[in-house]
Amino acid sequence: MSNEQVVKQPRITLVGAGPGDADLITVKAVKALKTADVVLYDALVNEELLEYAPENAVKVYVGKRSGDHTYSQDTVNKLMVDYAINYGHVVRLKGGDPFVFGRGFEELEYAASFNIPAQVIAGISSSIAVPELQHIPVTHRGLSESFWVVTGTTANGQISADLYDAARSKATVVVLMGIHKLAEIATIFKNEGKGNLPVAVIQSGSTSNEKTAIGVVDTIVDLVNENNITSPALLVFGEVVSLHPQFKSIREFYDAVAAK
Amino acid sequence: MSNEQVVKQPRITLVGAGPGDADLITVKAVKALKTADVVLYDALVNEELLEYAPENAVKVYVGKRSGDHTYSQDTVNKLMVDYAINYGHVVRLKGGDPFVFGRGFEELEYAASFNIPAQVIAGISSSIAVPELQHIPVTHRGLSESFWVVTGTTANGQISADLYDAARSKATVVVLMGIHKLAEIATIFKNEGKGNLPVAVIQSGSTSNEKTAIGVVDTIVDLVNENNITSPALLVFGEVVSLHPQFKSIREFYDAVAAK
Repeated sequence: MSNEQVVKQPRITLVGAGPGDADLITVKAVKALKTADVVLYDALVNEELLEYAPENAVKVYVGKRSGDHTYSQDTVNKLMVDYAINYGHVVRLKGGDPFVFGRGFEELEYAASFNIPAQVIAGISSSIAVPELQHIPVTHRGLSESFWVVTGTTANGQISADLYDAARSKATVVVLMGIHKLAEIATIFKNEGKGNLPVAVIQSGSTSNEKTAIGVVDTIVDLVNENNITSPALLVFGEVVSLHPQFKSIREFYDAVAAK
Repeated sequence: MSNEQVVKQPRITLVGAGPGDADLITVKAVKALKTADVVLYDALVNEELLEYAPENAVKVYVGKRSGDHTYSQDTVNKLMVDYAINYGHVVRLKGGDPFVFGRGFEELEYAASFNIPAQVIAGISSSIAVPELQHIPVTHRGLSESFWVVTGTTANGQISADLYDAARSKATVVVLMGIHKLAEIATIFKNEGKGNLPVAVIQSGSTSNEKTAIGVVDTIVDLVNENNITSPALLVFGEVVSLHPQFKSIREFYDAVAAK
C-alpha cells in the first residue's frame, strides 16, 4: 500500500444509461463506468448500474425531476467540472440517451470551456425502446414511414409548437415528458379529427413498475386515470399502436359500433 | 462425452446490434448471444459481435443491401423459424434497432404464427447515435424541440411523402437510407426556402470508416461528391448541425458574404 497521490487527468464521459432495465446499457458504457473516479447520476438512472463503478469511486445523485429543481443544470455543470479537476474521470450517467432532451450537449460545451476532454456514449433512448418492449414498432410497412419525437414540456413549461405540426402529420408521434399535459395533447389530436387514432401511454417502461394504457385519442385520458399512470411516462400516437395485442379488442368494439 | 441429443425449446430473440462500433451493443444483447444456438445476422452488423456466441453456434449471414436482395424478407423469416425448430434459440441480429425501419415487427409476427416465443432487445439506433458521436444533438434548447426520423427509400423505392412534411417542419430531420436520393431530398428543402439550413451527411458512423460532410442544403450534394461519401450513410437536416465544430467556418463565410 502506498500513500502516493496519483495525479489524474481530468476527463468527462457522458453516458446514456438507457430506459431503466439495467441490462439495457451498452458494453461501452460499462467500460467507462469501470474506470470512473466519480459518477454523477440522474433520477431516472437505475442505481444497480453504480455497481459497475469501482467501489471507492465517488457516487453523487444529481437528480432533478420536473418541478423539483434540487440541482439546477448550472450546479450539475459545475459539479462535473470540479470533480473532474479534483478526481479525474467523471462519468455523467444520464437516463435514456444524453442527447435526447438530455441537455447533454450543454454539458459537453461546459466541459470544453474548461478544456476538459469530454466524450459521449449513446444510450438506448426510451423514445424507441419503451414502445418496442411493448411490441409497438415506431415504424412499420403500410402503417408508418417515419417517427417524430417531441417533448411535452419545453423550457418555458409550454407544449412545444412542434406538437401541433406532429399531430397533423402521418408520422408516429412519441411524446416524452408529456403525461402531465395529456388532456391538452389529446385535444390537439382531436382538433385534427384524430379521435380514433390509437394511443399508448407507458409508465416506467422496461422496469418492474411498467404500466400501460392502450386506447384511442378519445379514450386515453380516462384510461390513464383509471390505471393510475403517472410520471415518468411516454405517449405514442399512431396507427402502429394498433399492432399491440390489447388493441385488437378495442378495434373489434369500434367495428361493432360502426356496423350498427 | 455423450451422443444424447438435447431437445431444445425453439425461441427467437430479435437483437439490435447498434450502429457499428461493437461496444455499442447492450449487456442484454450480449447475454442473448451467449445462449444462442444460431445467429442470423445482417449486412450492417459488426462481425466481431459473433464472438459472443458459443463457438459451436451456427452463424448465418442473411444480409441484404438496397438493390441486392440476396435474401428476401420471406427467406429470412423462414430460415429463422426453421432454425428455431431444429436448433433451439435463434438470435436474429440486426443493425441499429430492430424496430427502426428494420422490419423487426414482421419477424416477431412470423414467429408468433408458428407459436414460437419471441422477444426483442432494443439496440442503439443510428438515427440518434451517429449524429451524437459527431457531437450533433438531435435536440437542443433554443434550436430544436423535436426530431423526426424518416426513411429516404420506401417499400416502393420512392421518397416518403412524410419527407415533404418534415422539410416544412421545425424538427431536426434525420433521413436513413437516403444517400442515393440526396439531390432530390435537398431540392425538397430548397423548395421550402431552406437553402441555408445546416446539413450533415455521415457515412459508416461509429466505425473506422466514418466519413462526414458538413454544409448547408445548397452545398451538400457537392460536398458529398467531393468527399466520396456513399452508402450506408444518414442525413441530418437542422439548426443543431450548426453546433458541429466544422460548421463555424461555414457560418463565418456566410456572415462575411451577407455583410458585403
